[in-house]
Formats: sequence, structure tokens, C-alpha cells
Amino acid sequence: MNTILSDNYSVYFDNSLDELVDFIKKGNYSKFFILTDENTGEHCLPLLTSKLTGFNNYDLIEISSGEESKTIDFCVGVWKMLIDFGADRKSLMINLGGGVITDMGGFAASTYKRGIDFVQVPTTLLSQVDASVGGKTGIDVDGIKNIIGTFTMPKAVFIAHEFLQSLPPRQILSGLAEMLKHGLIVDSGYWNKLKNSDLKNPSVELVHRSVEIKNEITIEDPHEKGIRKALNFGHTIGHAVETYSLLHDKDSLSHGEAVAIGMICESYLAHKKTGLPSEELHEIVMVLTDLYPKYTIKEASFDELLLNMKKDKKNVGDEINCTLLTHIGEFSIDNVCTADELCESLRYYINL
Amino acid sequence: MNTILSDNYSVYFDNSLDELVDFIKKGNYSKFFILTDENTGEHCLPLLTSKLTGFNNYDLIEISSGEESKTIDFCVGVWKMLIDFGADRKSLMINLGGGVITDMGGFAASTYKRGIDFVQVPTTLLSQVDASVGGKTGIDVDGIKNIIGTFTMPKAVFIAHEFLQSLPPRQILSGLAEMLKHGLIVDSGYWNKLKNSDLKNPSVELVHRSVEIKNEITIEDPHEKGIRKALNFGHTIGHAVETYSLLHDKDSLSHGEAVAIGMICESYLAHKKTGLPSEELHEIVMVLTDLYPKYTIKEASFDELLLNMKKDKKNVGDEINCTLLTHIGEFSIDNVCTADELCESLRYYINL
Repeated sequence: MNTILSDNYSVYFDNSLDELVDFIKKGNYSKFFILTDENTGEHCLPLLTSKLTGFNNYDLIEISSGEESKTIDFCVGVWKMLIDFGADRKSLMINLGGGVITDMGGFAASTYKRGIDFVQVPTTLLSQVDASVGGKTGIDVDGIKNIIGTFTMPKAVFIAHEFLQSLPPRQILSGLAEMLKHGLIVDSGYWNKLKNSDLKNPSVELVHRSVEIKNEITIEDPHEKGIRKALNFGHTIGHAVETYSLLHDKDSLSHGEAVAIGMICESYLAHKKTGLPSEELHEIVMVLTDLYPKYTIKEASFDELLLNMKKDKKNVGDEINCTLLTHIGEFSIDNVCTADELCESLRYYINL
Repeated sequence: MNTILSDNYSVYFDNSLDELVDFIKKGNYSKFFILTDENTGEHCLPLLTSKLTGFNNYDLIEISSGEESKTIDFCVGVWKMLIDFGADRKSLMINLGGGVITDMGGFAASTYKRGIDFVQVPTTLLSQVDASVGGKTGIDVDGIKNIIGTFTMPKAVFIAHEFLQSLPPRQILSGLAEMLKHGLIVDSGYWNKLKNSDLKNPSVELVHRSVEIKNEITIEDPHEKGIRKALNFGHTIGHAVETYSLLHDKDSLSHGEAVAIGMICESYLAHKKTGLPSEELHEIVMVLTDLYPKYTIKEASFDELLLNMKKDKKNVGDEINCTLLTHIGEFSIDNVCTADELCESLRYYINL
């Protein structure tokens, strides 16, 4: 697989952990730190440390897994560890984990001593295709996802396909939603290829193409002033449903499960507002309902869902903005949707 | 006074509060927020709000004054207020206060929703000549000053000389130390002018020249890779003494008082290590001891002071780096100083 060139950094696919070791050697860092959670500490770290036998200038920082760790308290914990370990400005942070680790580790590094180098080693499908490029770092405050963060590019990204082998099927499905989204917004050929693939076990070629698509979009618009909003397709409603589920459900929805719901609702809105043909709407709905379990949404939750959408950091003023489709493979940004329209789209999902 | 052009933003001196009102109007912001502490809320805010009669889209956020407020807890408080007030990405933050307000408000704004616009309205002499340009934002963690922060430029800076009238003399002296430093590192003419001025009441011309000097340096080296380190003169030892005093003294040293001590010690080191002539050393010591009260440092505190210096975020590895002088008006960066040398310089101060 080609190395993908992003905004002044590379995304490695082949022998990526060896490339990482090479990167550390060449970087002449005073120290480096590997951030993990207990899952990646168990399943991914041994493979990495087995390659680090020549190094004695690194320390491990482990946090608990799960979105609950993506808070300022955990971030302060990471900062304090860096202080205690004597991290200086020539230190490197290696974020080994899923989106929580890469987002939070990126934020901690980008603000420690006003910014030290960091690299991403995403270990879930979701973080490989979504969090690995684009330079967004972030933490949650008051349960609002990524409300605090920076735009800071990593120095490199290392995608190791072998880490996906140990993932449970539900986590594969979570990342898959973003891959399907990449096809839906800009590449109908990729969408068709995905449709006809073994999606329980996406190939490295498919992962590579998703990273390529996301990279092209974020390079063109790093600060989300225009075309990057394409990536928000499915996310206005998806994020609201995800936040709702995190708060109310014992076994809450994964990001991808929520985004799949969001993509169905927003495809419906696209059909109504931006001319997505009905056969394409049905095709999208068929693929997504086939892959993802049905989630129960009640009319009584609509107010809370709308409130979540209003709090979305992408909005300006009181308007709710959606990225919609005009066709499979073509998007349309900045579509203001009324509360009535949004509720109608939720009802469409409920009645499927 | 000329408006100073910095890195994509302007620093206004004449009718600066009117310029601020004009800036807000032109910026087409959805909302704006004024961050104050109880001092600037009482002494500076009324003058500003009297000019805002036409606006109804702003809210006030007040925090307690003092370095104790520059913590992550207060910062989280500011973030939560922004969330509660519905601040979106088109919001503006106006930081009206001293260095704590401008540093922390800048950090809060630069990370809220991955960055909203902010402007600085520094109200102390120290913040006018030091914190207003250069784009450093920051908060303290575990008592370590500015250990967390970003490099983010404000959209504009408004320097209102009238705010200095209400300042106590000790606060004027605190800012003055940075002005004297600006002369010592790059402009002997300015140093001579300062020496012969009424320093209890520095003119707007003198303030303007200090901002100009700091601006020239920070524009050339925004991320402190080289020449910006000139600004650290007096600060390696100064910061260590300041941190010590904050922890141990009831009535702790001001920043400028600590930096004055640091400049004396580091001028001594400059005399020993980088050839600062003895008559220039004596001139510096005379001016500084004349202005600033003598502070009692004991041998028993040396270990703690050295530890503080080692923790300084400017250091790489275990070395302690100082910016020294070769002459008044000429600096030399990256001088590694041993513990013995640093202790000797502290003894020089003690025996003055």
C-alpha cells in the first residue's frame, strides 16, 4: 500500500510498526511516552514494545478505556504524568489506541508546554479510517463530545492492519459506518465496492481508500470552513442519537451504529430537500439496515434529540445545519433543517 | 502612537476602546463574551460597557483575580459558561484584564470548539508590555506556570493607557521589569531612556516601544526556536524565585520583582560567562536595586530553587539553559549553566 502524504506528515501502511521504530530513531527525541488503555495495553502494546528493545528512554501511560476517559480529569492526569516523567519540549507522545486515545492524547500533547510532537497509532477500524488524519484533537466536557480541542497535525500516522484481527465484530461495524460514509459523499465506485465486499473483515485496500478520501478532504479544508463539512454527513442526527444513547442506555450505541441511523435519516432529508433519487435512498437504507441492528427511538425523546443537535459545535446561532447528498457520491453542505423536518426524518427511521 | 502590526493582527494604542467597538461591529460575531476578574470588573469594565450601548449580544464572565485562578478548574468553569451561554464558532472572546485573564482567556478561547476568535485588552502594565503580543496562551498545573497552553494569535490587541492610572505602584513596577529587560536585551538607547524617565508613571511612548520590541522578536521566531529565547533573560532564575515565593511567602513577590532578581543574577552570570563588562553589570545592578526592594534568599532554599529551574519548560533534558547578555542591548541564548554557577549568582544577589 502507498504511504499517504497528508499535511506535512505521512500515513504508513506497510510494515508500519517498523516505520514507527525508524521514526523514533530518526527523531532524536529526549524521551518518548506511549499512551494506551487497558485493552491496547494488553492486545497491541506487546507487539510494539517487542520492537523497542534498543530503547530505554520511554515510559508508559495507561488510562481506562471508553468515552468516559475522554474528560478533562483524565487529560490532567496525563499532563501530570508527563510532568512527573520529566517530559520536555523534545519529547514524543505515541498514542496507541482507538479514537479516545488518539483524540485525547493528541490534545494533551498539543497543549503540553504549548505543544510537543505526537504520532498516532490507531488500533480500531474507526480510528484508522476516521481519527487518524485531519488533525483534530479533543476531549469532552459535560458530556459534549470534542467540545474542547485543537487543530494540530500529528508528525506521522502508523496504520497496522494486524491490530484489527483482535477486534470484536461490533467494533469493526463501528468503523465501517465511516467507510460507507466516505463512499456516499464522494466516491460511488468505492460505495459499490464496499457493498460487494466481505464487510466483517475489511481489507487493508479498503481501509487505505477511506484514509485517502478523508485525507483529500481535510487537506483541502483543514479548519472546516467548507468542503470538510462533507464529512459531517450522518453526524448531525448521528451525534445526537449517540449522546442520547450514552446517557440513557445501559448498552449504549457505538459511534458507527449511531452514524448509520444518522445516515438513514439524513438520506431521507436529502431525498426531500436536495434531490437524492428515491432508488438511491432505498439502496442506502437497504445496505445500512442489513448491516446494523434496529434501534428504538420514541417520539418522547425527540425534544432531547433536537436539543443535542442544537448544541452541536458545527452550528452557528440557533440553526441546525446538515450535510446532505444530491446523489450517491455527491454531497451538499449547509442545509438548514427545521425541527419539523428533523422529526419527520426520525419518524421515517422509526417506521422502517 | 502608531498601530503596531503583528502576525496578522494589529495592536492599537490611540482611542483603542473605540477601535475595539469598531472591531466588534465589523466582525459580525454571533455573540461576544467579556472575561474579567473582580478588579477589572470594577475598574475597567464600566468604561468599556459604556461604549457598548448599541449591543445586546454579549455576556460577562467573571473569575477571581490572582494567579490562583489560572488553573484548569477555572478554565473548565469558563468553558462551561461558554457552553451555557451558547457560544458558537462565530463567537468572540474579549479578555479584559492582566496576564492571568489574557493567558487563560486566550487558552480557553483557543481550545473551545477547537478555537474561537479572541482579542486582548490588557489592563496592567505587565500584560500590556508582555502578554499582549506573541500569541502565547497558558494555564498552570501543579503550580507550574504556563505548563499547559497553545501558540494562538489574538485577532487584535487594544492597549488603553487610561487603565494604568488606577494601578497600584507595585503593579507598575512589576511591568517595568519587562520593559527594562527589553532594553537590556536589544536596545541600549531604550534602556538609557528608561533610566532617565519617571518610572513610577511610564509614558505611553515607553509602553509603545516595549510592545514594538517584543513584537519584532516574536514575529521573527513565533515558536521560540531561537531568537525569542532572548525574552527569557532574567526568567530562568526569576521564574524559580517567583514559584518559590508563591509557595512560601504570605505576601509573595510580583512577577516583575522576581524577574528583577533574576536579571541581577543572570547579569552576574553574563559577566562571568559571556563577557558582560563589569561597569555594565554594576549599572544594571544599580538601576534594579534602586527600583526593587531587596528579597531575602537563604542558602537552605537553593535546592528547591534549582529544582524549579530544572522543571522550567524551556529546558531540554537535565540541562539548565539561560539567556545572558554580552553587552547592554545584546543577548546570547542557550548558555548552559551548572548548579554551582547558578548558586554563585544567587550568592552574589544575597551579598549585594
